[in-house]
Amino acid sequence: MNRVEPPAAVVLLSGGLDSATVLAMARAQGFSPHAMTFRYGQRHEAELEAARRVAARENVSDHVFVEIDLAQFGGSALTDDDLEVPKGRDLSEMDDGIPVTYVPARNTIFLSYALAWAEVLGAVDLFIGVNALDYSGYPDCRPEYIEAFARMANLATREGVEGERELRVHTPLIDLTKAQIIAKGLELGVDYGLTSTCYDPTEAGACGECDACLLRLKGFAENGLTDPAPYR
Amino acid sequence: MNRVEPPAAVVLLSGGLDSATVLAMARAQGFSPHAMTFRYGQRHEAELEAARRVAARENVSDHVFVEIDLAQFGGSALTDDDLEVPKGRDLSEMDDGIPVTYVPARNTIFLSYALAWAEVLGAVDLFIGVNALDYSGYPDCRPEYIEAFARMANLATREGVEGERELRVHTPLIDLTKAQIIAKGLELGVDYGLTSTCYDPTEAGACGECDACLLRLKGFAENGLTDPAPYR
Repeated sequence: MNRVEPPAAVVLLSGGLDSATVLAMARAQGFSPHAMTFRYGQRHEAELEAARRVAARENVSDHVFVEIDLAQFGGSALTDDDLEVPKGRDLSEMDDGIPVTYVPARNTIFLSYALAWAEVLGAVDLFIGVNALDYSGYPDCRPEYIEAFARMANLATREGVEGERELRVHTPLIDLTKAQIIAKGLELGVDYGLTSTCYDPTEAGACGECDACLLRLKGFAENGLTDPAPYR
Repeated sequence: MNRVEPPAAVVLLSGGLDSATVLAMARAQGFSPHAMTFRYGQRHEAELEAARRVAARENVSDHVFVEIDLAQFGGSALTDDDLEVPKGRDLSEMDDGIPVTYVPARNTIFLSYALAWAEVLGAVDLFIGVNALDYSGYPDCRPEYIEAFARMANLATREGVEGERELRVHTPLIDLTKAQIIAKGLELGVDYGLTSTCYDPTEAGACGECDACLLRLKGFAENGLTDPAPYR
């Protein structure tokens, strides 16, 4: 009996709610997910542990951790100890320009590594959990950015020059609200208790007050649910 | 007396002949060059030492070394010990498809880091020594690729969304032959004895037989000159 191997796809996995959902969606779409997680000078390891747990539970084909040093450039509250993570903001304030938690060129660097791995795997499908609604302030989460990256990627690689398949950047969350993402993930069996979204977690759990926690809690509340992840 | 600071530019500096020339050209065009060099699982340190020497001689404003791990993906003779660097090929063979020394998504990753640093510096000018004539087999050295990267970069960053300046990827070597690059560099005072181009150098010097050495030696010969760099 011949078995057809599902095509490989590279899935960017941070360990947060969004990327855990994307991983489950990639598999549901018939791909064999290869997970890629970055260590990039974050102040905490909670996200990386979450990525490990999520990938193990999803039984991914392969999971690579890529060390990248963005902290040496500074310029973001997520990598620079001199900048404070904002807490307890009204959600409406989040629309006000590019947030301090923005990391310079982060998604471009992440997708570039994903492209390199895809090329070696012979894959043409990349998945990233960007979201245009919740993170409207991040320039590299917008659809026009993703389209431009895909266009560039098709000109950058062997496959684009010599191959017949087009490289695709899948953004299945791009138009979903946080509540819709959570509903979709629960439908696919994602265990959100394994994920970590907080910008400032401790061993006891998430802070519940940063922008990421507030959006997440609101998403569960809108589904009439309690977030299963630990809060301190 | 008011002094106007020259605008910062990020210059990708490998330590080879091409990027040393680009660095001198960036300064000649009125920029304050900030040099960025990558360690990416090369088999040798000669290139990195050369980058250090070139940056020191050019007295750059800043020089960062970025550690990136491309070797974990494999797929290139420059990062994978299982693949042989081709030696003693006829130069006409180099036009035959994408060479084995191609590194997956390398320029995309390099330019993405340059973009991140530029954003932190408030710079909008990136310089890269790609060359469409000598390296026609590398997809990420072609003008259409560079244009697509610049377009993506302008959608990826704060400056592209909120700013008034356009991000530019300068490729001053793109249409030049190796002989023309060398002539230009000598005019600007580049000391090519400090540079290292070889794909397979030892402490005693360059091999003189790989594609990179052959192209370089031909370039000096066409200028009626002897390459000042050491060969073993």
